[in-house]
Amino acid sequence: MGTRPHVVILGAGFGGLSAAKSLSKANVDVTLIDRRNHHLFQPLLYQVATAGLSPADIAAPIRHILRDQKNTRVLLDRVVNVNAAARLVFTESGTALAYDCLIVATGARHSYFGRDEWSAHAPGIKSIEDATAVRRKVLLALERAETETDQARRKALLTFVVIGGGPTGVEMAGAIAELARKSVSRDFRSITPHCSRVVLIDSGQRLLAAFPEPLSAKAQSSLEQLGVEVRLGRRVTAITADTVQTGEEIVPSHTAIWAAGVQASPASIWLRCACDRAGKVLVDEALRPAGHDNIFVIGDTAACPDGQGGFLPGIAPVAKQQGRHVAAAIARGGSVEPFRYRSFGNLATIGRRHAVIDFGRVRLHGLVAWLLWSVAHIYFLVGFRNRIVVGLNWLWNYLTFGRSARLITGDVAPEPAQERMIA
Amino acid sequence: MGTRPHVVILGAGFGGLSAAKSLSKANVDVTLIDRRNHHLFQPLLYQVATAGLSPADIAAPIRHILRDQKNTRVLLDRVVNVNAAARLVFTESGTALAYDCLIVATGARHSYFGRDEWSAHAPGIKSIEDATAVRRKVLLALERAETETDQARRKALLTFVVIGGGPTGVEMAGAIAELARKSVSRDFRSITPHCSRVVLIDSGQRLLAAFPEPLSAKAQSSLEQLGVEVRLGRRVTAITADTVQTGEEIVPSHTAIWAAGVQASPASIWLRCACDRAGKVLVDEALRPAGHDNIFVIGDTAACPDGQGGFLPGIAPVAKQQGRHVAAAIARGGSVEPFRYRSFGNLATIGRRHAVIDFGRVRLHGLVAWLLWSVAHIYFLVGFRNRIVVGLNWLWNYLTFGRSARLITGDVAPEPAQERMIA
Repeated sequence: MGTRPHVVILGAGFGGLSAAKSLSKANVDVTLIDRRNHHLFQPLLYQVATAGLSPADIAAPIRHILRDQKNTRVLLDRVVNVNAAARLVFTESGTALAYDCLIVATGARHSYFGRDEWSAHAPGIKSIEDATAVRRKVLLALERAETETDQARRKALLTFVVIGGGPTGVEMAGAIAELARKSVSRDFRSITPHCSRVVLIDSGQRLLAAFPEPLSAKAQSSLEQLGVEVRLGRRVTAITADTVQTGEEIVPSHTAIWAAGVQASPASIWLRCACDRAGKVLVDEALRPAGHDNIFVIGDTAACPDGQGGFLPGIAPVAKQQGRHVAAAIARGGSVEPFRYRSFGNLATIGRRHAVIDFGRVRLHGLVAWLLWSVAHIYFLVGFRNRIVVGLNWLWNYLTFGRSARLITGDVAPEPAQERMIA
Repeated sequence: MGTRPHVVILGAGFGGLSAAKSLSKANVDVTLIDRRNHHLFQPLLYQVATAGLSPADIAAPIRHILRDQKNTRVLLDRVVNVNAAARLVFTESGTALAYDCLIVATGARHSYFGRDEWSAHAPGIKSIEDATAVRRKVLLALERAETETDQARRKALLTFVVIGGGPTGVEMAGAIAELARKSVSRDFRSITPHCSRVVLIDSGQRLLAAFPEPLSAKAQSSLEQLGVEVRLGRRVTAITADTVQTGEEIVPSHTAIWAAGVQASPASIWLRCACDRAGKVLVDEALRPAGHDNIFVIGDTAACPDGQGGFLPGIAPVAKQQGRHVAAAIARGGSVEPFRYRSFGNLATIGRRHAVIDFGRVRLHGLVAWLLWSVAHIYFLVGFRNRIVVGLNWLWNYLTFGRSARLITGDVAPEPAQERMIA
C-alpha cells in the first residue's frame, strides 16, 4: 500500500461491491473484506431454495468480479470489531487493518423477534447455505410423504407454511406452490397436485405492504390462483417441528419458512453509535453515523432517512445507489452531499406467470410484468456467464415446468418410523 | 403391488439405474432404493471438485429419470441389511421390503487401506458432498495463501497433492493444475501461475495402469506440461494436516486429495457371502453370489471374472452392461447366461486440451482425444437439459479459462493467525 488514502469496505453485497467498483478510478487504495468468497444475488435466492437455480448461477467470486481493478484487493475474513478512534478493523484471523476511510456494508440476517428457538424449525433465506437447507427440507418432506401411510402425518408433510408477506415471502410461496403442486407431481406415485397445501401468513392487513394497494390485491389473487392460502392479520405465536400456530389456528406442517423480519449486523455495536429496533445504524443524510466523519454506513446496515419522515427500504437498488454515492464523496476528497434515493420501480414476482411492478404512476401486473421482472433480474445479475445460464435455465423451466436443481445434499437421515411391511 | 414378481434394486448408480430402465417393459414390479434422491454422473465429479461444474449439472433426481416408468417406484432410504432366506431388505427408516428377486448395486466408497485417520486430511471424491468439500478446501487454500506472509506456510498452502494415479487421480491433478496455475491467478494479487505446485503420487511404475504403456507415457508428459510433478513407485506413509510423506520425502501441503483405493459397500456382509480384499462380492459368470439364485450383484459391488483369470474394472460401462444383462435375465423369467463385457474403449482426460483413449487396436491422445472424450461424456449425461448446460459450461470455460462454480460454501473459519498489522 502506498501513501494514498486507504478505503476499507466491510461486506461485498450490493452496497459494498457497488462502492468498490465506483472507486476503481479514484486515487485511493481499496480493501474489500467479506466472510464469503462470493457476491450473492440475494433477490433470486428463493429460486435456489425451490430448486429452480443452482447456487453458482446466482453467485460469483468477489475476486473475479474485481480482478481487473488494480487499486483494490479482496480479503476473505470475518470482521469482529472496529476501533473508530484508532481507525482499525479487527478480523477473526487476527488481523488489525488500518483505514483512512471506512464503508460499512455488512447487511442483515433474519430476525425471529426474540424467538430464536424458532430458527430450528423455520429457517430463513439469506445465504446459499440457508437456501440449500430449505431446498433439502422441502424436497425431503415430499420424499417422506410419498411413503407415509398415516394420513395425518402425510398431510403435515405436504403442508408448507411461509411466514411473512413481503416480496421474499410472496415469491417463496408462489415458487413452492408451483414446485409441490405442479413440477414434481408427475415424478411421484402418491402425490397429486391437490395433495399439497401452501399457507402464507402475515400479520398485516395486506401482502406487499410497500406496494400500492391494488397491486397487493393482484398479488394475493395470483397466489390464490396457484393454490396458496393467504392468511392476513395473523401473528405467529408458536412454531414446532410439525406445527405452526397463529392465534387459535394450529396448522400441522413439517416445513415452515421464515421471511418475516431482519436484524442488522452488529455494526452499531462496533461503532458504539445509535441504532433502530432492528439494529440498523442511524445515519445522517450523507450516510454517516453521528460523530464519525470518515465512516459511512450503507445498505441493510443503515437506517437512512427517506426525506419524508420515514426510512428507506432494505432493497438492492437503495444499497447500490448508496454505494455509488459514498464512493463519489470519497473520490472527491471529502465534500459530502445528501443522498437522494431515485426509485426506478418496485418489483415482486409470483410463480412463472405473474409479477407486480410499481413504477409510481404506472403499475403493471400479470405476464407482462413477469417478463419485465425476468429481464431486469437477468440484466442485473453479476457476470456475463451467469446471465446466459440463468436465462437458459428459466426458459427451460418455463417451457417444461421442470425443476432442474432438485438435489438433496447433506446427510439424508430418514425419520425413524414404526416397523412396517411393504410387500 | 400386484402378483407379478417384485424386483428390488439397491442403489441408483450406473448399474442399478440401467437395470431399472431395462425392466421398464418387463412383467414385473420394480422398487429402486437409494439413500440419495439423485443419480450422480460420477466420472465428472472431479469437475465439481475443481469448480468447473455445479453439482446440479451432473446429477438428476432419480424419480425424474424414471417418472414415466409405470412399473417402478423409487424409495429414498438407506439399506441396512438383507435377510436372503426370508427374502427381505431392511432399511434405516424401519421398513422390511419383501422381494422375489434382488439386484445389489450399492457401489463403493474410497478406502484408506486401514488408515482411516487419513480421511480427515485427504478427502476422496465419491459423492457431491465429497466434491464440494474438496472444492472448498482447494479454494480456501488459495484464499489463505493470498494473505499469508510466512513463505513456508504460503508454499504449503499452494501445494496440492493427489494420491493415486488412476483416471480419477490423473483427471484431478490436471484440473487442479489448471485451476491453481492458470484460471485464478489473474484474480489474486500475490499468486502467480508459478507459485503453485501440484504433485501426483502413485505406488505403481506408471500412471493409468489399466491403459497400454504408450498412453500412460503420454498422460504423464501431458500432466508435466501442465506443471504437475509426477512421483511414481512411491507409497504414501503418512498424511497430516500440512504434510504428505512418501518414504524419505515430506511434501508440505495443506491440500491432499485421495484417489487411491476403493472399498465396496457391505453387501457381502448382508448376504453372508465371499468377497475379495476390497469387499467386492465374488459372483459367478451370471453375476450371482454362490448359493443365491434370485440375487444379482453388479457394478463396483461385484468382483466379476473377466474370463482371462482377472476381474472386470470398476467403471461405468461395466456396471451399465451388467445392469442390462441381469434385467434381461429377469425379464426372460430366470434363464441366465454368462455376462460378457464389451469394451468400447477406455478414456481419461488431462486438463482442457489432452485426453488418452484406448480403443484396443486404435489409441488416441491429445486434442482429438479430448474432443471425443467431451462429446462422449456429454452424450452419456443423464437428462437432456444437463447435456446442454454442461456443454455450454465447458465451451465457456474452454474459451475463457474461467471456473464458474468457484463457491466456498459451508462455514468459512479462517485459520487463527498471529496478530499482525496490515497498513
